[in-house]
Amino acid sequence: MSTDLARFSVNQMTVRQLSLPELADACRASGVGQVGLWREPVRAYGVEAAAKLVRDAGLTVTTLCRGGFLTALDPGERAAALADNRRAVDEAAALGTDTLVLVSGGLPPGSKDLRAARERVADALAELAPYAGDHGVRLAIEPLHPMFAADRCVVSTLGQALDLAERFPAHQVGVTVDTYHVWWDDRAPAEIARAGAAGRIHAVQLADWTTPLPEGVLNGRGQLGDGAIDMRQWKNLVDSAGYTGPIEVELFNERLWTRDGREVLARTAERFVEHVIR
Amino acid sequence: MSTDLARFSVNQMTVRQLSLPELADACRASGVGQVGLWREPVRAYGVEAAAKLVRDAGLTVTTLCRGGFLTALDPGERAAALADNRRAVDEAAALGTDTLVLVSGGLPPGSKDLRAARERVADALAELAPYAGDHGVRLAIEPLHPMFAADRCVVSTLGQALDLAERFPAHQVGVTVDTYHVWWDDRAPAEIARAGAAGRIHAVQLADWTTPLPEGVLNGRGQLGDGAIDMRQWKNLVDSAGYTGPIEVELFNERLWTRDGREVLARTAERFVEHVIR
Repeated sequence: MSTDLARFSVNQMTVRQLSLPELADACRASGVGQVGLWREPVRAYGVEAAAKLVRDAGLTVTTLCRGGFLTALDPGERAAALADNRRAVDEAAALGTDTLVLVSGGLPPGSKDLRAARERVADALAELAPYAGDHGVRLAIEPLHPMFAADRCVVSTLGQALDLAERFPAHQVGVTVDTYHVWWDDRAPAEIARAGAAGRIHAVQLADWTTPLPEGVLNGRGQLGDGAIDMRQWKNLVDSAGYTGPIEVELFNERLWTRDGREVLARTAERFVEHVIR
Repeated sequence: MSTDLARFSVNQMTVRQLSLPELADACRASGVGQVGLWREPVRAYGVEAAAKLVRDAGLTVTTLCRGGFLTALDPGERAAALADNRRAVDEAAALGTDTLVLVSGGLPPGSKDLRAARERVADALAELAPYAGDHGVRLAIEPLHPMFAADRCVVSTLGQALDLAERFPAHQVGVTVDTYHVWWDDRAPAEIARAGAAGRIHAVQLADWTTPLPEGVLNGRGQLGDGAIDMRQWKNLVDSAGYTGPIEVELFNERLWTRDGREVLARTAERFVEHVIR
């Protein structure tokens, strides 16, 4: 692995057209030593089998994506979500990663109360954080772009994510900094410093902002360098905050998914070096 | 006009399928006494003719939309934008409205510097604010949802808009509060109070947040009551901040534009009463 890629991690979603064995092969071919994994493909392959695969390939698992969806009002749904998040913690531990990314969840049907939904996230964290800590897994609350506030994640800013995280010890709960979600926020640099000082930057992810956004706004995240975000600036911000960990590139991009996954991984690693490192 | 509709104003874009005379007729039919107008259809009709039309119809023009687009780097483009904004001030004065809504503009091609773009907005305001004040027109900086930060408006929060506005006298520069753009922001209520205390709430607009967002995310603003936003809460916030002025409903919605405009206006007025007033 080249020094330039020492901090690079490819999030599985960037090359979701690859199976887990193909991903491991592509990482070896591109000199990539770290991956962020997703629960659904890992479970489809088998958690223990996936853990053995990445271990045998010499890959480090930087995060597991994702737990969360903790905003349900219905008691049965809430209990199911908590149980599912405990399983996600178990899976993270089995895969050998210390970080579970959390997407908090949107408004329940018919509800218009963002504040109450955020408070339910805090209540759920109070149950999950000790469990995660006991298993050596840190929960990394990911603020999602405000355009997802209604249907996906009521936590929209790093400030909100930190306000939640700070109710718990840093080794249990921190935040995920994803450029795609926070780049527009003039308060984000100060919040990154705040998070770093408290040892709460548990994951860093990159994607670029390109327009026009596609219908549903989910799968239009740009390749590094294709959009409006100054990647080097954000890398410098997390570095200045004391973060020395891996930097994942996580692209939800319909166009990239139609291409050869090994090729996409190779180009993504090149873009990382060009736009983040050099 | 019923008491329930005393503060209601229909923004022209909500029923853009109607010509100006049709809009005036529809307002009379629905008991609507106030309209927010857009520059393009007004200019197409003729500014003086439009002013006479609304005057003869007994309509109050609550805002003119819109000036702005003040982020150009190129000196020639910048001068052209300033000249165009002076014309927009003139048009607002001619139409008898005291409020020109400003959409600040996005990043220039190739630029990734939001902060510098916002500073160029401030520089432009320094030239425009006195001109507007001299013509009895207030500039109302509208923060647009962060999903528009790259390509349409680098001012994404009420806090940023107020930081800009406060460099100038309140009778020259204030803000537009549009629920569609600020509803996700847990800091917006405090910023509304700050704006109200300073007499800087120059316009209030409503639209609901519905998902999934359409491609390009421009024309999916929901009819009041159809989405995630608690309209009454936001009406109470501006009221509590001392705002007593008109409340425009501004819906960019492809589906509504295919329907009969008079019908859309009547339904919109009903929704306003149901979700905002009663």
